[in-house]
Amino acid sequence: MLDDYFDSFAVRDWEEPTDAEPIRFAMVGLGWWTREQAIPAVEDADYAVTSALVTSSPEKAADLADEVDTVEATLTYEEFLNGEATDAYDAVYICTPNAVHREQAVAAAEHGKPVLCEKPLAADVEDAEAIVDAFEEADVPLMTAYRVQTGSTARRARDLVRGGAIGDVVAVNGHMSDTMVEFTDPDSWRLNPDLSGGTTINDIGVYPLNTMRFVLDTDPRAVQATATSTGGFFEGVDEHAAFHVEFSDSLLAACTVSHSATGASSLRFVGTEGELTLEGVFFPDTDTVLRLTRDGVTGEFRPETANQMREEFDYFANHLQRGEPVEPDGEDGLVDMHVVEALYVSAETGERVAVEMDI
Amino acid sequence: MLDDYFDSFAVRDWEEPTDAEPIRFAMVGLGWWTREQAIPAVEDADYAVTSALVTSSPEKAADLADEVDTVEATLTYEEFLNGEATDAYDAVYICTPNAVHREQAVAAAEHGKPVLCEKPLAADVEDAEAIVDAFEEADVPLMTAYRVQTGSTARRARDLVRGGAIGDVVAVNGHMSDTMVEFTDPDSWRLNPDLSGGTTINDIGVYPLNTMRFVLDTDPRAVQATATSTGGFFEGVDEHAAFHVEFSDSLLAACTVSHSATGASSLRFVGTEGELTLEGVFFPDTDTVLRLTRDGVTGEFRPETANQMREEFDYFANHLQRGEPVEPDGEDGLVDMHVVEALYVSAETGERVAVEMDI
Repeated sequence: MLDDYFDSFAVRDWEEPTDAEPIRFAMVGLGWWTREQAIPAVEDADYAVTSALVTSSPEKAADLADEVDTVEATLTYEEFLNGEATDAYDAVYICTPNAVHREQAVAAAEHGKPVLCEKPLAADVEDAEAIVDAFEEADVPLMTAYRVQTGSTARRARDLVRGGAIGDVVAVNGHMSDTMVEFTDPDSWRLNPDLSGGTTINDIGVYPLNTMRFVLDTDPRAVQATATSTGGFFEGVDEHAAFHVEFSDSLLAACTVSHSATGASSLRFVGTEGELTLEGVFFPDTDTVLRLTRDGVTGEFRPETANQMREEFDYFANHLQRGEPVEPDGEDGLVDMHVVEALYVSAETGERVAVEMDI
Repeated sequence: MLDDYFDSFAVRDWEEPTDAEPIRFAMVGLGWWTREQAIPAVEDADYAVTSALVTSSPEKAADLADEVDTVEATLTYEEFLNGEATDAYDAVYICTPNAVHREQAVAAAEHGKPVLCEKPLAADVEDAEAIVDAFEEADVPLMTAYRVQTGSTARRARDLVRGGAIGDVVAVNGHMSDTMVEFTDPDSWRLNPDLSGGTTINDIGVYPLNTMRFVLDTDPRAVQATATSTGGFFEGVDEHAAFHVEFSDSLLAACTVSHSATGASSLRFVGTEGELTLEGVFFPDTDTVLRLTRDGVTGEFRPETANQMREEFDYFANHLQRGEPVEPDGEDGLVDMHVVEALYVSAETGERVAVEMDI
């Protein structure tokens, strides 16, 4: 029985190979994440290829088109919005400033192109709702790019928790941090609230938030948050934050996030019968640990590292090939936008804020 | 160098043996904690013995006096308060309902007897201030019974963090839980706010709170908290809680505590250069883990389990023998009472509460 568990731990439980051609992706936005994470991951993917590049920088497009031999077209943002060269791609990956997701995603929906949209889904709830509505109306698949959900370590945590391995979950502790100053220019859109909608809570707070929702299958009813900044690089934006989340009278969560700390990723679920901790799952290609304690026994699983971006693209592409619905969908991303909005209101007012949504 | 580290990990860095006789303790309150934890720990201690029993139950006193052959006197609470048989003990351990700590501790101070008082120091700030004042006036040692601080795992964490092993600490995550219904009668004083001052935040919330203050050497400026109850056994009291604590613009903490979950104890410090996690330290005789990650390397230390109650009594007694000041003192316990008060106000009002104290 235990050897079966090991054998199936890292299996893609979502995968069904087909004879279909790989899904050809238009990469919208050629920032460092797309260049250094998404495109290399897709080059290694089974069901996805990069076939179009959309950018305001002809130089970046030309350099990448030289390197990636599956590229059929390079487009400006305006050409993309106008629906040029839609024959050159089957689906769209959006990795641009949060405030421009809306126009790009809605345009893709209107062109009938499925979209994998980076998280957070938008810079505010209004934009996120408009995006979700557009895809519903067009009847086109929309996936919010919570790559954690496609990684096997988080999926095994979900299986265990939902299967009752730690009893009824009572408390969750989450943390994510990185050292933003090392990989972000001071003039980045991520530091401009008009373009980003926020710098730390909405950029990395959504990792523990969304992952606990994924594992627990429940949504917050209220939040309290504190956000701080030491100025300088982070002048006027949230650099560090602590928040807690009420799911119910018997399920509370508490998290910290920071863009000025060592790279760290942890999520701990405590239940009536045991506890389960995940390490490393919030990063795209980091070693992960799943640690389960129950009946006085602690077991630790350390799967071989799998690139989450590759898993995410393959998950999305394989589902498109099969015409199957995708998770996390747009509504999943919209729920988090409501929670993020409540967190920022709480951080501003110092008050408990109810999460109000009708999704 | 590493072998030195292993050799010194569990050494009592606070100990200096003397030729003095063991300190004879009056055990005030013979509830399950005193009977099952404190007295057995003292029987195993190097510098402490149980010489007096103070209780409202003559049966309990008689049973215990038969079992513990160092007992010289048994007293009622009234006899203790009146200063009878003070020759039969050198120091006092108080483990009674929080609301009666004050009269017992103040009486001990007036009798010139050093006190080890269980946490929380009292049921409210006013009582805690009166206790601290009485010991200052009498010039008698008072120790708040945060036994975690006398255990080697927490002490090594403090050494590492204060020595810069994880850089500047930015975030802390804490959790403590147990299954109170399994070890507490429904009519326990712990479920009566008038006697306890609170059920979960002040009973077990002080573990992560005090331990992070011990490791970090800094005090909170503001808090936000949520407390919930599912009723029944916990009708009208806090069963679960989540809270976060602002220490400064660059140091935030987030915690969960529950009296209705599996026994769990964790405290994680994330800094600019690494992270350090403690497991198990909030329980008196549980295996502990100290896990340090820095420069991509994770080291895990699993010391032989040491009984914290024995360490605590030996620490206190050895310091009394030497006439040395004790830590955690009464003021340390008073700081936590201010923070606990702020946490309960926040949980009640849903608002951020500044921690105001002049200690």
